[in-house]
Amino acid sequence: MSQFKRELTIEWGDCDDAGIVFYPNFFYWFDSTFQGLLRSKGLSQREIRSRFNAVTPLVDVGANFRSPVTYDDVITIDATVSEWAERRLRVAYTVKCGERLVATGFELRAWAQVVGEGRLKGAAIPDEFKAFFSQEDVAQ
Amino acid sequence: MSQFKRELTIEWGDCDDAGIVFYPNFFYWFDSTFQGLLRSKGLSQREIRSRFNAVTPLVDVGANFRSPVTYDDVITIDATVSEWAERRLRVAYTVKCGERLVATGFELRAWAQVVGEGRLKGAAIPDEFKAFFSQEDVAQ
Amino acid sequence: MSQFKRELTIEWGDCDDAGIVFYPNFFYWFDSTFQGLLRSKGLSQREIRSRFNAVTPLVDVGANFRSPVTYDDVITIDATVSEWAERRLRVAYTVKCGERLVATGFELRAWAQVVGEGRLKGAAIPDEFKAFFSQEDVAQ
Amino acid sequence: MSQFKRELTIEWGDCDDAGIVFYPNFFYWFDSTFQGLLRSKGLSQREIRSRFNAVTPLVDVGANFRSPVTYDDVITIDATVSEWAERRLRVAYTVKCGERLVATGFELRAWAQVVGEGRLKGAAIPDEFKAFFSQEDVAQ
Repeated sequence: MSQFKRELTIEWGDCDDAGIVFYPNFFYWFDSTFQGLLRSKGLSQREIRSRFNAVTPLVDVGANFRSPVTYDDVITIDATVSEWAERRLRVAYTVKCGERLVATGFELRAWAQVVGEGRLKGAAIPDEFKAFFSQEDVAQ
Repeated sequence: MSQFKRELTIEWGDCDDAGIVFYPNFFYWFDSTFQGLLRSKGLSQREIRSRFNAVTPLVDVGANFRSPVTYDDVITIDATVSEWAERRLRVAYTVKCGERLVATGFELRAWAQVVGEGRLKGAAIPDEFKAFFSQEDVAQ
Repeated sequence: MSQFKRELTIEWGDCDDAGIVFYPNFFYWFDSTFQGLLRSKGLSQREIRSRFNAVTPLVDVGANFRSPVTYDDVITIDATVSEWAERRLRVAYTVKCGERLVATGFELRAWAQVVGEGRLKGAAIPDEFKAFFSQEDVAQ
Repeated sequence: MSQFKRELTIEWGDCDDAGIVFYPNFFYWFDSTFQGLLRSKGLSQREIRSRFNAVTPLVDVGANFRSPVTYDDVITIDATVSEWAERRLRVAYTVKCGERLVATGFELRAWAQVVGEGRLKGAAIPDEFKAFFSQEDVAQ
């Protein structure tokens, strides 16, 4: 039940001295893929901010690395909201190179209202937000 | 006479505290677009290494910023080898957001033979390499 | 029982559009602090490679974010090898801004022998390597 | 007549597949060293914003690479405001590894007033700002 999938080519600058992807880049890709997931639903960080006066700060993240990828490899990253808690959403990521599993990971994001001067306050995720994820994609 | 063009979406992590692209990212994109240009000609850094025993280290780089771009903007980056010297090639980049000019830049790259233990020695660019850039694209 | 601590200033380019650290940077800092821990024990990735013919690829990583930091904040990152398994070591990280807890995290690293042509094979961590971590620091 | 100097260790993640620094990182360090220069004068991007209602966007940047550096090398980066124009300042950078010259570079920054809703308007650099650079350092 993948909700969003993107493909990218591993660039020269993504790899380290050992010739494989420097691992923090996977989190950059997770975050970018989350943005892509939002866009595919007609949303974005800005849209969330202006429509719900909310942001989705990270609480917990993790990744598990199964096999390395290197310069010029083409990978796919799959993102799915795997869990809705009252004030949290969990996004699960799967990275593959062809059929080969490269990595899995997750981001646990909070729902936080902006309550003036950049201060944030945890709040329940509105149903209107969740509804975006049950509809058909509006854009890729 | 563009030789290669790619499109990308500005990601959340590409922007800084002022909400616009943190400028070193443009050079990451220049380098990535150079890799894309190579791939479009049937080449890559690895191919250059194995076929010519050579690398293309940077000598000089620069960029000129005309207008800012931000999260969710879609930009195009155009790359062209604008000059061939005996031991140098110059790659020119143009970044646009729609019709709006965002930045121009260049990379001056040397041609260097690998002469053992990672040591490099400047050398003339072989005609066989240049020929790749006058042919039709073999791949995108 | 901290084994290594470093201090750094949050730079402009480390922060995102929301004005706080873009989270993948924490993993860049974890990895850098692991390198610092190695150096404080008279080791380095290169030393591990040449002395043990081994590398320490990442298996699992994670981070938990408690409070945000922003441009110009000074943080400390503390690294400790918190667990030795036969073929794995776990490094625990604690990030603080003054007394305030910013994040915790870990890296689970494998011990892998280089067995020719860049191929890796899991192996038991040699006692000689572990011994580096029970001695006094040789350098900061 | 160096105005600010900082030292840093090349980290694993700063290097690319060829084992040398991936060049966009030099611009990250230039920008960070500019922030360090500001701090050494009792300033910061935030201070410039609140005191002068101004920002210093990049107009032109460049770098020239003389010799490579790699993982574990210690480099120094020297920053000096080398030129004051009416609406521009030029910051010159010199990167060394011991006595060996690694790179030189520059940033040409504009002075821009924030005129509402994030819109910027070029303006003359106030003498009060320039005065910070002729005084003794207030902090390192």
